Amino acid sequence: MEKTTKTNTFTFDVFAKDGSARAGRIITPHGNVETPVFMPVGTQASVKALTPAQLHELQVQILLSNTYHLYLRPGEDTIASCGGLHTFMNWQKPILTDSGGYQVFSLGKLRKIDEEGVWFTSHIDGSKHQFTPEISMQIQEKLGADIIMAFDECPPPHDKTYNIEAMHRTHLWAERCLKAKPKNGQTLFGIVQGGIFPDLREASAQYLANLNFPGYAIGGLSVGESKRDMLAMIKVVNAILPENKPRYLMGVGTPEDLIEGIAQGVDMFDCVLPTRLARHHAAQTLRGRINLANAANSQNERPIDPDCGCYTCQNFSRAYLKHLISAREMLAATLLSIHNIHTLVKLAERLRQSILEKQFDLVCQELRASLQQGE
Amino acid sequence: MEKTTKTNTFTFDVFAKDGSARAGRIITPHGNVETPVFMPVGTQASVKALTPAQLHELQVQILLSNTYHLYLRPGEDTIASCGGLHTFMNWQKPILTDSGGYQVFSLGKLRKIDEEGVWFTSHIDGSKHQFTPEISMQIQEKLGADIIMAFDECPPPHDKTYNIEAMHRTHLWAERCLKAKPKNGQTLFGIVQGGIFPDLREASAQYLANLNFPGYAIGGLSVGESKRDMLAMIKVVNAILPENKPRYLMGVGTPEDLIEGIAQGVDMFDCVLPTRLARHHAAQTLRGRINLANAANSQNERPIDPDCGCYTCQNFSRAYLKHLISAREMLAATLLSIHNIHTLVKLAERLRQSILEKQFDLVCQELRASLQQGE
Repeated sequence: MEKTTKTNTFTFDVFAKDGSARAGRIITPHGNVETPVFMPVGTQASVKALTPAQLHELQVQILLSNTYHLYLRPGEDTIASCGGLHTFMNWQKPILTDSGGYQVFSLGKLRKIDEEGVWFTSHIDGSKHQFTPEISMQIQEKLGADIIMAFDECPPPHDKTYNIEAMHRTHLWAERCLKAKPKNGQTLFGIVQGGIFPDLREASAQYLANLNFPGYAIGGLSVGESKRDMLAMIKVVNAILPENKPRYLMGVGTPEDLIEGIAQGVDMFDCVLPTRLARHHAAQTLRGRINLANAANSQNERPIDPDCGCYTCQNFSRAYLKHLISAREMLAATLLSIHNIHTLVKLAERLRQSILEKQFDLVCQELRASLQQGE
Repeated sequence: MEKTTKTNTFTFDVFAKDGSARAGRIITPHGNVETPVFMPVGTQASVKALTPAQLHELQVQILLSNTYHLYLRPGEDTIASCGGLHTFMNWQKPILTDSGGYQVFSLGKLRKIDEEGVWFTSHIDGSKHQFTPEISMQIQEKLGADIIMAFDECPPPHDKTYNIEAMHRTHLWAERCLKAKPKNGQTLFGIVQGGIFPDLREASAQYLANLNFPGYAIGGLSVGESKRDMLAMIKVVNAILPENKPRYLMGVGTPEDLIEGIAQGVDMFDCVLPTRLARHHAAQTLRGRINLANAANSQNERPIDPDCGCYTCQNFSRAYLKHLISAREMLAATLLSIHNIHTLVKLAERLRQSILEKQFDLVCQELRASLQQGE
């Protein structure tokens, strides 16, 4: 079976499998990405509260940034005139941009869909804008990420009639994205939709597989459906998507979901959760989530996690973090973001290693037990 | 003339003089400080928006932290039980704590003074507290800084009657601080007061010099008086303070004030200005102050200062900083704080070098011209 996909500017190799779990490598013009991988999100060209130097130190391999936000502010032309997103935000490793679809469809009443695309109202100043597959490609070309995403429609997961309609539109838009794709070597991924309906997910995966994208995302999940539905959909889709293409589960970022996603053959994940939790005073560990704002931490000299090797756990007590939170010091968000991203980066690395060593199931069992048990 | 002061835990050497400007070295239990030096402020045991690792990278030699704030939150006992301030905030280089005096006297109607000390109302929860020289010494002992400050009264600079009264109280309190001084090797500095009145400043410097503190601060300046008055007071005081003791000008932190203070023989400075300016979108350069929020920066690919070697100027454009400010990203405060602290740290270093090379006047002339000329 084919285990490699290759274009001039994009290579993906699956090195090892253990069950459905895969260990591989993506090669882009800005460097390599060992998979499975967690991608932190820099919505507005900044991973909140962290410098690129801190992200390097965290061994982050690839960042995601959002086309919708960057289009509205500062605008793709500003970023292009500053040398593209890598230079603008000073991140010389790989970047992936989404298509703007997810954000636009999240605007609710502020948007109107037709076959051509979507009209929407800016959340910043109320101005009117249109996104189409072609416009999304043009914006993402100017941003200059290594991996760009097809413009898709992300409907509420439980409405079948709407999901059928949206899926067909997503497929037609995928074809338009392929035609309008930048000629500069950016790699375009397709996005599977279909809500929580196995027949739609199957049809969508099949349709897009036939379009021969170099990589695929599973969209429309982690948007309110049950964990059981989410995993069932991943399973259906991954049974159809070609083995030699990377699979990216969009918007997923708990340790539990990474474990189960990787077990089902997912290679890439992104989520704002680690940095958002951090701003809400929560630390994610492999023994569950901890609220540092809790008064019980006020005198606690121990780190968040004595087994964690991150800068925060190596150098700061819970008492100090609790103090920073009480005193509303920005450093709290920085130190907790460092810890939370470290947790997911190292989790993906550990699972990768376990796949290479054919110990994946054993490691997953340990991790699931630890996550359930808590502190 | 004596150029050295030495205790078991504190050494100060003046290596070189050029005019009144001095280059020296302080040795503390947590390491050396090359003077003149700028000390960033970590009011609540955190230099706002920066990690200790970033402060190390900025070659910060010594931090200041505030007794008033730490006493109220998290409390000196919490910090002591976490191993002291160095461990609590993970800063293993020298620390200086103030006495709480300045903050308490800034509370206005929220405080009441008598000979014993000051009763005040917490700005956090309205609770009542008393600071006395003895209590300030006890709190600072628990915090565990290398250098601690005498408890003084800092009156409005232009009211002579009040300044006479406050100065006498400050002198009596200085003697009580010496008696109540921790026995653990912390180094206690005295503080000269006297408003903008040369005769009071002279009397205060003389009185405190006779008490033989290992170092002296000039307090009660940079609180609303003119630059001319400030410099005149520094001159009067430094003519009396012993040559072999370090001189610390409290609360001063513009490049202009560092230059003129060093020219008058000051060795140490602290100020919240670099981090406060950063949170208000301003960059301090040696060509003046720049407001990054200005729309003119939106498309500006140049760094804040092309001649600056800081992480921010080496890696980020004004357009990116302006974008971070518009998008309300915390990273703006971090990157501007890095730049602003770098500017003052490097300025002190450059002036120190010029003193060692007997080029101080020349370098000051260049710096004054550059600061006046602007961009």
